[in-house]
Amino acid sequence: MTLPPPSVSLVPTDRAARARERERLIEATAEIAREMLERDLDPAPLPAEARDAEGLAASLELAPGVEGLALEAVLERLRAALATTPTSSSWRFVNQLFGGRVAVATAAEALAAIPNISMYTFKAAGAQVLIERELLLRMAERVGLAGAEGCFTPGGSIANLVALLLARNAAAPEARERGLAGAALTVYTSAEGHYSVRKNAGVLGLGRERVRLVPVDARGRMDVEALARRLSEDRARGLRPVLVNATAGTTVRGAFDPLREVAAVAREHGVRMHVDGAFGGSLALSSSRRHLLDGAELADSFSWDPHKMMGVTLQCSVLLVARRGELAASLDESADYLYQADDDDLNPGHRSIQCGRRNDALKLWAAWLRLGDRGWDARLERQLALAARAAELVAADPALRLLEPPMSINVCFEVRRRSSAAICEKLDREGRLKIGHGIVAGRRAIRLVCVNPDLEERDLAAILAEVKAAAAGLPEADDRAAAEES
Amino acid sequence: MTLPPPSVSLVPTDRAARARERERLIEATAEIAREMLERDLDPAPLPAEARDAEGLAASLELAPGVEGLALEAVLERLRAALATTPTSSSWRFVNQLFGGRVAVATAAEALAAIPNISMYTFKAAGAQVLIERELLLRMAERVGLAGAEGCFTPGGSIANLVALLLARNAAAPEARERGLAGAALTVYTSAEGHYSVRKNAGVLGLGRERVRLVPVDARGRMDVEALARRLSEDRARGLRPVLVNATAGTTVRGAFDPLREVAAVAREHGVRMHVDGAFGGSLALSSSRRHLLDGAELADSFSWDPHKMMGVTLQCSVLLVARRGELAASLDESADYLYQADDDDLNPGHRSIQCGRRNDALKLWAAWLRLGDRGWDARLERQLALAARAAELVAADPALRLLEPPMSINVCFEVRRRSSAAICEKLDREGRLKIGHGIVAGRRAIRLVCVNPDLEERDLAAILAEVKAAAAGLPEADDRAAAEES
Repeated sequence: MTLPPPSVSLVPTDRAARARERERLIEATAEIAREMLERDLDPAPLPAEARDAEGLAASLELAPGVEGLALEAVLERLRAALATTPTSSSWRFVNQLFGGRVAVATAAEALAAIPNISMYTFKAAGAQVLIERELLLRMAERVGLAGAEGCFTPGGSIANLVALLLARNAAAPEARERGLAGAALTVYTSAEGHYSVRKNAGVLGLGRERVRLVPVDARGRMDVEALARRLSEDRARGLRPVLVNATAGTTVRGAFDPLREVAAVAREHGVRMHVDGAFGGSLALSSSRRHLLDGAELADSFSWDPHKMMGVTLQCSVLLVARRGELAASLDESADYLYQADDDDLNPGHRSIQCGRRNDALKLWAAWLRLGDRGWDARLERQLALAARAAELVAADPALRLLEPPMSINVCFEVRRRSSAAICEKLDREGRLKIGHGIVAGRRAIRLVCVNPDLEERDLAAILAEVKAAAAGLPEADDRAAAEES
Repeated sequence: MTLPPPSVSLVPTDRAARARERERLIEATAEIAREMLERDLDPAPLPAEARDAEGLAASLELAPGVEGLALEAVLERLRAALATTPTSSSWRFVNQLFGGRVAVATAAEALAAIPNISMYTFKAAGAQVLIERELLLRMAERVGLAGAEGCFTPGGSIANLVALLLARNAAAPEARERGLAGAALTVYTSAEGHYSVRKNAGVLGLGRERVRLVPVDARGRMDVEALARRLSEDRARGLRPVLVNATAGTTVRGAFDPLREVAAVAREHGVRMHVDGAFGGSLALSSSRRHLLDGAELADSFSWDPHKMMGVTLQCSVLLVARRGELAASLDESADYLYQADDDDLNPGHRSIQCGRRNDALKLWAAWLRLGDRGWDARLERQLALAARAAELVAADPALRLLEPPMSINVCFEVRRRSSAAICEKLDREGRLKIGHGIVAGRRAIRLVCVNPDLEERDLAAILAEVKAAAAGLPEADDRAAAEES
């Protein structure tokens, strides 16, 4: 048996050729990165082609060939695809709960791809496991859960899924081994909480129907009396409540459920409380708004996505769990071929719903080193101030209507007598602005998320000007119709 | 309300300072990347400090401060942490089912972090959604499931989880809405299949106990007659089989279950078949070994991790599903604030267990463009040839014992009269080699995974020399004891 020479196996024919390709790639990556970062500072509207899916697919020549391409040709294809891809760090993107970046986090994300290790064991991941552990300890301490355990998850929905799994297994300890056997387990979340609660109840075998959507008050916060009533009713009917999901930062309005009151009701009824802080958990680092998380220390578990308000590249999500040991009790398998060294504490794979798991910790660590606690506080303050300022600009403009003062960094508003949905759709179609809409107290409103702290007042003005220009070309609607159209 | 000036919010005080930081980061990232890549070519053993968790944690100064650090100080910390992190692309790392890289994929991973978009909608992710769609179509076609739908998942365990969810919901259509009500649903996988099958049965409410571990034949392949017997017995007892999980590439031995025969038995019993090709699915691109996947076209679903044999950075995992519509039926939620434009087909969020989802497609696309189909075939051929050659070297060495000819790229062997576990532990502790062990036909063996095609014959020789040197320092054991120790 002779080995086929490396020349057969790889496009570059030998070590020297591979070294040249490596060097060219380092240089080209830096070059393309520089171009993209500069474009974000003074972004042109996306070209019309970028919005025509099938035309775009054809023009990008997506299909790989039977034969490979020269490196320069691949770089050209990458460049073309990236040029028509929306970017989340310019003022033209205020569509999601993330946007903007801590630059050193992006660099650390790129660097983590080089050792390319998996975060299950200290043997495989070494120092990266220690970095992750440090971050989990610190985050737990900041939300008032010092001593909690935790895990990094691929997004907030999965963090919420694991939290619900732990609650299910606490209430039905036989479920993991013998399966769910028709116990009528119920779950509670506000009507404006994240959709993942229902989705996850469907996945975990509890059933979507068993999720009770508790009404909210005028500001979008869970109505705690309604929660208590619903819990009492369900228990009287023989149902078994297992979890109250309190939301710290709702998706549309950025509202915070009153955690301490929710916790008191949950405790009274013997039910666990999970805090979905995927969006708003970062305010644990804000001196001015930490109070919105008052009561988080009573939670059984807490989700927190640094990839949202903290400007760390997707994905970076964490689930914290108050009682150590619960994660492994619901997730661990004795994988003999994998866990061959070190204490369980150093092998986070025992506490993960995944097996192989990418390194999402290094970038957050780099950002935290760079900013320090005070830097996070100042960065959050800037996001909050941008939202407050945007609200002022809206309120001062007779063509616009502010739906409510911002609860945190989401500013919900309308253009008077115009459909919010139609405005957003037009802005997107024309490549001018990525912005979305949602329902606020029964009215459909435009949602401006002030999550990118690098925006300045002139960017807010430019965003509102785009919105008004788009609205000007749309038919007038009466007040009720404008708010209801979707 | 005045905005706090950007100087308050961010460590760099203004646009010019931010531009300087950006430029320095691009340059430093390139520099550190170059150092790491060069180190991989001629890797020194990891320093002893790297294996002492608490000493290492102290020396790396992990705790972020109240005040932030200057950029250069952060870069130094990053450099130090990365210098003690194992890397998966040198010959000293043969511990996992991944290792080695297609260089342009690593570059594309870094570039994808800059636009930093989430893959739920065409509105947010644009061209990246089209790239993902192209890859899913192509991968489906290659495993014989042309017309299948698919999704990218955060790892193969989650791909298997979704596959089992679909099977559960097909068998118990009320489960998603009303919950699992004690139907005794059973699942079948080989005794050497991946642990995620049992773990996922625990998560989804089926119960770990309900997973039947079907015996394997002498080569580690599922015993199809035993499967048929177990299905008959379970059905006779009133249980309800929902899924047979066939493995294409087992974790320890790299064995392939006989898919066509498994499919026939599954069909006869009215049970779905999932193929766990997380490891071996890539052989769909190999002209010499495509036959190992014969019968995959009969699968209801198929997992495939390009981050394993295809050298694409973690994570890059795909689940293919034969019947279009099944993913959304089990996963979709109508998230009004999110899906505001375009057909469902262009919004992959409807088919994902996640909400926000990172871009794992661009890197695979870049690699495929560079290599073309023929390049993949040649790259796989090189991996297979390395395994065959390593097996020859082992077989020719009187101090070693080859447990079996490699089924694909895993070479399982022992050092005669020495404990495999103790050898691996010592090599790890001394920083010389990351290599693991597993059970092969009742004997504990060292597992050498030949997944990095850039290794050369001298690297295989160096690996075996390290193993023998470590063994030489260990006490002799009799043949039975050496194979049983763990």
